[in-house]
Amino acid sequence: MMIPMSIKVCVALMSLIACADSVHYQPTWESLDSRPLPAWYDQSKIGIFIHWGVFSVPSYGSEWFWWYWQGSKPYPNYAQFVRDNYKPDWTYADFARDFTAEFYNPDQWAEIFKASGARYVVQVTKHHEGFTSWPSKYSWNWNAGSVGPHRDLVGELATAIRKKTSLHYGVYHSLFEWFNPLYLQDKANNFKTQEFVTTKTMPELYELVNRYEPDLIWSDGPMGAPDTYWQSKEFLTWLYNDSPVKDKVVVNDRWGNNTICRHGGFLTCTDRYNPKTLQKRKFEDALTIYGSSWGFVRNAQLSGYLPVETLITAIIQTVSCGGNVLINVGPTKEGTITPIYEERLRQMGSWLKVNGDAIYGTKPWRKQNDTTNSDVWYTTRSDAPHVVYAMSLKWPKGQLVLGAPMVNSQTSVTLLGYDKPFNWTAPASVGMVIDVPSLSVNDIPCLWAWVFELRNVF
Amino acid sequence: MMIPMSIKVCVALMSLIACADSVHYQPTWESLDSRPLPAWYDQSKIGIFIHWGVFSVPSYGSEWFWWYWQGSKPYPNYAQFVRDNYKPDWTYADFARDFTAEFYNPDQWAEIFKASGARYVVQVTKHHEGFTSWPSKYSWNWNAGSVGPHRDLVGELATAIRKKTSLHYGVYHSLFEWFNPLYLQDKANNFKTQEFVTTKTMPELYELVNRYEPDLIWSDGPMGAPDTYWQSKEFLTWLYNDSPVKDKVVVNDRWGNNTICRHGGFLTCTDRYNPKTLQKRKFEDALTIYGSSWGFVRNAQLSGYLPVETLITAIIQTVSCGGNVLINVGPTKEGTITPIYEERLRQMGSWLKVNGDAIYGTKPWRKQNDTTNSDVWYTTRSDAPHVVYAMSLKWPKGQLVLGAPMVNSQTSVTLLGYDKPFNWTAPASVGMVIDVPSLSVNDIPCLWAWVFELRNVF
Amino acid sequence: MMIPMSIKVCVALMSLIACADSVHYQPTWESLDSRPLPAWYDQSKIGIFIHWGVFSVPSYGSEWFWWYWQGSKPYPNYAQFVRDNYKPDWTYADFARDFTAEFYNPDQWAEIFKASGARYVVQVTKHHEGFTSWPSKYSWNWNAGSVGPHRDLVGELATAIRKKTSLHYGVYHSLFEWFNPLYLQDKANNFKTQEFVTTKTMPELYELVNRYEPDLIWSDGPMGAPDTYWQSKEFLTWLYNDSPVKDKVVVNDRWGNNTICRHGGFLTCTDRYNPKTLQKRKFEDALTIYGSSWGFVRNAQLSGYLPVETLITAIIQTVSCGGNVLINVGPTKEGTITPIYEERLRQMGSWLKVNGDAIYGTKPWRKQNDTTNSDVWYTTRSDAPHVVYAMSLKWPKGQLVLGAPMVNSQTSVTLLGYDKPFNWTAPASVGMVIDVPSLSVNDIPCLWAWVFELRNVF
Amino acid sequence: MMIPMSIKVCVALMSLIACADSVHYQPTWESLDSRPLPAWYDQSKIGIFIHWGVFSVPSYGSEWFWWYWQGSKPYPNYAQFVRDNYKPDWTYADFARDFTAEFYNPDQWAEIFKASGARYVVQVTKHHEGFTSWPSKYSWNWNAGSVGPHRDLVGELATAIRKKTSLHYGVYHSLFEWFNPLYLQDKANNFKTQEFVTTKTMPELYELVNRYEPDLIWSDGPMGAPDTYWQSKEFLTWLYNDSPVKDKVVVNDRWGNNTICRHGGFLTCTDRYNPKTLQKRKFEDALTIYGSSWGFVRNAQLSGYLPVETLITAIIQTVSCGGNVLINVGPTKEGTITPIYEERLRQMGSWLKVNGDAIYGTKPWRKQNDTTNSDVWYTTRSDAPHVVYAMSLKWPKGQLVLGAPMVNSQTSVTLLGYDKPFNWTAPASVGMVIDVPSLSVNDIPCLWAWVFELRNVF
Repeated sequence: MMIPMSIKVCVALMSLIACADSVHYQPTWESLDSRPLPAWYDQSKIGIFIHWGVFSVPSYGSEWFWWYWQGSKPYPNYAQFVRDNYKPDWTYADFARDFTAEFYNPDQWAEIFKASGARYVVQVTKHHEGFTSWPSKYSWNWNAGSVGPHRDLVGELATAIRKKTSLHYGVYHSLFEWFNPLYLQDKANNFKTQEFVTTKTMPELYELVNRYEPDLIWSDGPMGAPDTYWQSKEFLTWLYNDSPVKDKVVVNDRWGNNTICRHGGFLTCTDRYNPKTLQKRKFEDALTIYGSSWGFVRNAQLSGYLPVETLITAIIQTVSCGGNVLINVGPTKEGTITPIYEERLRQMGSWLKVNGDAIYGTKPWRKQNDTTNSDVWYTTRSDAPHVVYAMSLKWPKGQLVLGAPMVNSQTSVTLLGYDKPFNWTAPASVGMVIDVPSLSVNDIPCLWAWVFELRNVF
Repeated sequence: MMIPMSIKVCVALMSLIACADSVHYQPTWESLDSRPLPAWYDQSKIGIFIHWGVFSVPSYGSEWFWWYWQGSKPYPNYAQFVRDNYKPDWTYADFARDFTAEFYNPDQWAEIFKASGARYVVQVTKHHEGFTSWPSKYSWNWNAGSVGPHRDLVGELATAIRKKTSLHYGVYHSLFEWFNPLYLQDKANNFKTQEFVTTKTMPELYELVNRYEPDLIWSDGPMGAPDTYWQSKEFLTWLYNDSPVKDKVVVNDRWGNNTICRHGGFLTCTDRYNPKTLQKRKFEDALTIYGSSWGFVRNAQLSGYLPVETLITAIIQTVSCGGNVLINVGPTKEGTITPIYEERLRQMGSWLKVNGDAIYGTKPWRKQNDTTNSDVWYTTRSDAPHVVYAMSLKWPKGQLVLGAPMVNSQTSVTLLGYDKPFNWTAPASVGMVIDVPSLSVNDIPCLWAWVFELRNVF
Repeated sequence: MMIPMSIKVCVALMSLIACADSVHYQPTWESLDSRPLPAWYDQSKIGIFIHWGVFSVPSYGSEWFWWYWQGSKPYPNYAQFVRDNYKPDWTYADFARDFTAEFYNPDQWAEIFKASGARYVVQVTKHHEGFTSWPSKYSWNWNAGSVGPHRDLVGELATAIRKKTSLHYGVYHSLFEWFNPLYLQDKANNFKTQEFVTTKTMPELYELVNRYEPDLIWSDGPMGAPDTYWQSKEFLTWLYNDSPVKDKVVVNDRWGNNTICRHGGFLTCTDRYNPKTLQKRKFEDALTIYGSSWGFVRNAQLSGYLPVETLITAIIQTVSCGGNVLINVGPTKEGTITPIYEERLRQMGSWLKVNGDAIYGTKPWRKQNDTTNSDVWYTTRSDAPHVVYAMSLKWPKGQLVLGAPMVNSQTSVTLLGYDKPFNWTAPASVGMVIDVPSLSVNDIPCLWAWVFELRNVF
Repeated sequence: MMIPMSIKVCVALMSLIACADSVHYQPTWESLDSRPLPAWYDQSKIGIFIHWGVFSVPSYGSEWFWWYWQGSKPYPNYAQFVRDNYKPDWTYADFARDFTAEFYNPDQWAEIFKASGARYVVQVTKHHEGFTSWPSKYSWNWNAGSVGPHRDLVGELATAIRKKTSLHYGVYHSLFEWFNPLYLQDKANNFKTQEFVTTKTMPELYELVNRYEPDLIWSDGPMGAPDTYWQSKEFLTWLYNDSPVKDKVVVNDRWGNNTICRHGGFLTCTDRYNPKTLQKRKFEDALTIYGSSWGFVRNAQLSGYLPVETLITAIIQTVSCGGNVLINVGPTKEGTITPIYEERLRQMGSWLKVNGDAIYGTKPWRKQNDTTNSDVWYTTRSDAPHVVYAMSLKWPKGQLVLGAPMVNSQTSVTLLGYDKPFNWTAPASVGMVIDVPSLSVNDIPCLWAWVFELRNVF
């Protein structure tokens, strides 16, 4: 992990254009993997994931609704739900007309995302259902311009994000489509044919990049087929050498069933990837505020939504280990981000407003989790390695005992958001004990996790 | 206020049936007002209000949607909203079919209401739109059995509340209906005719009482017409003397434009009635969690929902002054209570779990708001008048200074939810100063208002 | 039959107002039945019946759809049809929103009815479903103004008929309503209570008369209840003495289960009442072009529509016996009269254009059906009793043998629509033989029934 | 015309398989045009055309609805119709869900088509809207399996036609699609690119042929692009050499803007192609029963439907000149053939039942239209050239004067459907005069055009 990260710093300091001009990538993973990740991505740490599509219309169970209902059918309640609530012989395509989006207000979304403290946004532009949220030429009458919203959901959000905020805008794109007959045909041919890839996946990916110039491409769904089937290396070669976003774009690792957790840009490995140990390569932990679905679930109860403590814990642990966190929101078919999502995002933002120094632009310290106190996780400043942030998931009673820091006489301790320094002692050559006064609710800077800034520790 | 309350205690101690048998009310306010309020109501303190109807389908702006759109038309955005989102010539009645209620789960609602700490529920069974949430004989094809839910929304909730909880079940019922042509005709006749009352309002009110036996009737909407037009006194006379709920039923005061805040059972006066001074008669402060509408608003943002602090403040102030609080929830057309509502209710419940002793079954103390510390409000125990609850809206820094209590040597102070007593001093003949240690988030029993139990104060 | 008819002639010759002023009817059948039928009705002979309502939305099987589906349930295919084509728990009221009427063009209807040769129109304004096709005050949100068409289907047609044609405009009105809970309650009380009649049936009948001033009221659906339950005599007394239509209005006989075929204005007895013998009182034969339903049936095949020959046969037989014919049309939910109906009406009109002299304003002759030739039916001119029309349902081969007419030397025979007289002989004292040449399709005046005008026969 | 027809006779007499084996076609028009038309087509004379698609949902104005509304916009009433009747921002794709087809009964359709006397059926399987009436792999979610009918409209009709009748089954297929973005892109590139053809048009045409094995392919819509763009010659080469229908299939001429009326199978030239003179090549006159639209028009009036006389005139004239007639029917979105269409078809069938000898399997005579009597058209028997049918559009008064036939002493004249021979004279060397008695409606064999069979004329 150390070497790529130093390269990234280098890239961040130099002119991006100059860097890019000097390299021409080849369609091999060796070459493609050698490309440094543009620095903005590691510095941003926190992104917002948006799952919004035709699945937001039934809005039942999961964004995998279609597959659970008519594909693998693992849960009989999906079919029962359709029988109970829709006309006989209802199809998934019939849902599209009710994807009304009448309250879709991208400026309002942008404001909420900004307030959450996130630094980038990744929008699902096409999920496994195949419905494109932009009016794609390659998905005629199965896109948001033709049916349902009658709007360009992608273009509108990209514009709003860029106009209203300094956040980066990225796109999620599913390579495969559960029920696309051309995909099924290629699959039946053991992926020896590529009719689906050449007429659907690739044309629309190029279209997406050329039209919206995303900062990030979050590929998904290689589904049993290798990168060679998906023509991923060829696409990335173009993306890195010749596309309009070649200098800024970041991609993930889901470009073939042989690439996940191995090749590409940052690694996603599995959903909710929170390894809790330092990783060799940049990774991202994608998790969803509503625990059991990425898409909106109309009949969700409160208990299904993660409390903000859980979100902050994930941020702290992941960033400590060198990862980014991608926090998912599921808007409604009407185009709203419901208040419970908004509340979680704003709670997160209020915490980051106090504690952002310990997150944004930091890098992993030499220890991630304290050796003594398992509730404490560390980061350090990229530009000041002896400033270390000890993030405690619990409020310490009287004193905070840390096993990892090495102190000297210059060492000082403060609490982010609180103005007085704390006393400390060092009973041994390694480790320290910080005196923590009992701060009442009037004085405590936040309610969910507390960051102790240690200066001159080693 | 004192005299009626002592009567109520009496009623609570004696057999309700015996009491009721001894009185026969006359259709005069003098007689009707003389009926003691059944004790359960005052003891309950907190109720849940439910606004759910056809207005939950457009779910835009306010439950007064119809009137704002096609009646008084104060806001052009209502008509614009309909033009933008529905077929030309759309009518309000056209919305009814989309009142689907597919997720309506009354047992789940009952569980949430119970968890909120409320002790009674008041459901809108017919709002000014005239749509009855039960399959009324007098509202054919404009009721929840015929169109939309195809269910008895009233009967199902009444049953669930009674089966799953010990909460009381009450009904809201609007006397007038904005656009009912028979009402409009009576109105055009200056209420000299009563065709609407005799064929619609009264038949359905009797039906409602006989069929569901509510514990509470929350009448609304006399709208410029007197009790004589509405035949209210005759209805209440039957209700008190001969109805199946004569012993337990509680009613409010909206039975004619001449009765509000004057006659009936408890007084509601205006919406959000929080007088902050002791009232002569029992009153109720109805307020809605989503501040600007009682019905659900689909495109509401978080900022429109009251924070729990505001709800607890209203509870504390209102109960101090002898009132009940009726907290409103607006379910969706699908039949869900959205998580933000659920969260507020459960937050309220968690506070009441700690602090309920200061609320349920209490009565106003000799002071309501402390004479020195405006953040402190009082209640006292009905059965132990020298136990006084000083409820502080703010966490005191170091000490809590109170101007009203008179102490003696037996006086003791504790914090509800915290096990150690606090020291106090009495610098003068009246008032006291309590030493309050700095409790950290680990120790503090709640986060939003704190109740000091004072024993042996006068 | 002779006596009432002479009275009618008298009425037709005198001033209507003068006549009406001289009588005041009592609420007894003796008195009400003594009222002469306004002359226009008998002179008109042919009317158009229009069955159009919410049943035109499912438009399946019959306009009795609701009853067959959820009432008596004689045919399982009705329930199956709903299960197969609509959401679970669909109700009849749910259909109303799809009663779109977007192509309803009353002027166009009026033109078609006029072209059919009919002289009056009877529109179903409320069928047994209870849905009023006008915005009735007494059927709030279950009327064509509130849901579905959002128009006054009654007022618009009344206006168009009167503006564009000289046809008379009448209304069909069902007394009972299958599923109206107030009706069902009265019925459960063995019609000892009259809540339904006093709050629904009668108010809306008065409203209908006062608002649209119909020339004819076609009452239906007394359904097991007597005239006393329905308050029919009181209504008719008002109608005849004091209503705005007292001088012109004609009513039928369905005002109680004890009045059908006995009291009222003209008799309808049973549907498709074609007795084929002279009747004592004026009657009407109502029949529908689509044989098995009065309402439109979407999946009807051609074979279900009566050929024009059958319609003309019914006209000839009924008028011969003193009756009127009411030909029924079932428009679509979109508001169209489909071309097959239009074709039958225009075919009928083309026949009447040639043969109308034998129909309009005629009266029965001394024989209705010829004594020898069962294909021949007679009428005679009201003002010229020795002009007799022998209407032959078949084209005679070479000669037409008639048993009934008595001839003299002045007797002449022509064929309506053909300019040359025909020779005849009289082999006996009664009867005659007419020589009929073989007219080719170029010369024959019509294709479906042929009228021989006999002058100076007895 | 004579030479190709003698080839066809030859083909009809020999084994089709033997013939086909002996030829291998090249992708040149010279080669493709040399293929003899399978004999069944010329012998059939009369086909049924079926226009049924998403355009049947708005069912307004024309099956070109989409183009008139949002493409060329020649008529403002289309946009007005959408504004008046649908939600704002309605799209054409939104209509698809309402293509319900609940009454689609292919067996019933087959029975009607058989009764019409037609010998083949051509179903629109994809019109310019691009919606495939079969569940095509190449039109995902824009086909009748995915949205609307949820059925295979093509497969079901093909099966019913073949199971219930001996009619031939053919498919109409539009090459271009008004709004397909890939087509529009190719068009913008002046048809130098072929992305649309290679990914949509050709794959689905092959799919259509392989899956349904049609007897006829009625190509349409080359729209400004040549056969080279459409890859038509390559397709036809496969079709004639290697496809499963190579021996029986018949195609038309619309395979490129340079082929219409020049190359392919039979010629269609323009819609309603009725040249009234003998043609060199086999042609087809496609006409629609509802004059101004091929698709169903919901608000059509009777006057818009052709009377059966017009249809029979077209049949007579076209067959006389060597053509076939393709009579169009527009079913409803519900899947019904409305009674007016059914009536026209059955009327046509009743005429053909009497007069079919003059139509089926005939060939043009040496004269088409009589030289003297412009109401008379001729055919002759393929197997008996001296049997000539003189078809008179009018019923002759007394005598039928013909200018073309040359008689001899063996010449005889009968009327099809009538059993007695007619006398004739020959005033000159060419021509004849037939004595026609005045047949009354009882005796005349049909009502709309009359066929005189002349034996031994030259």
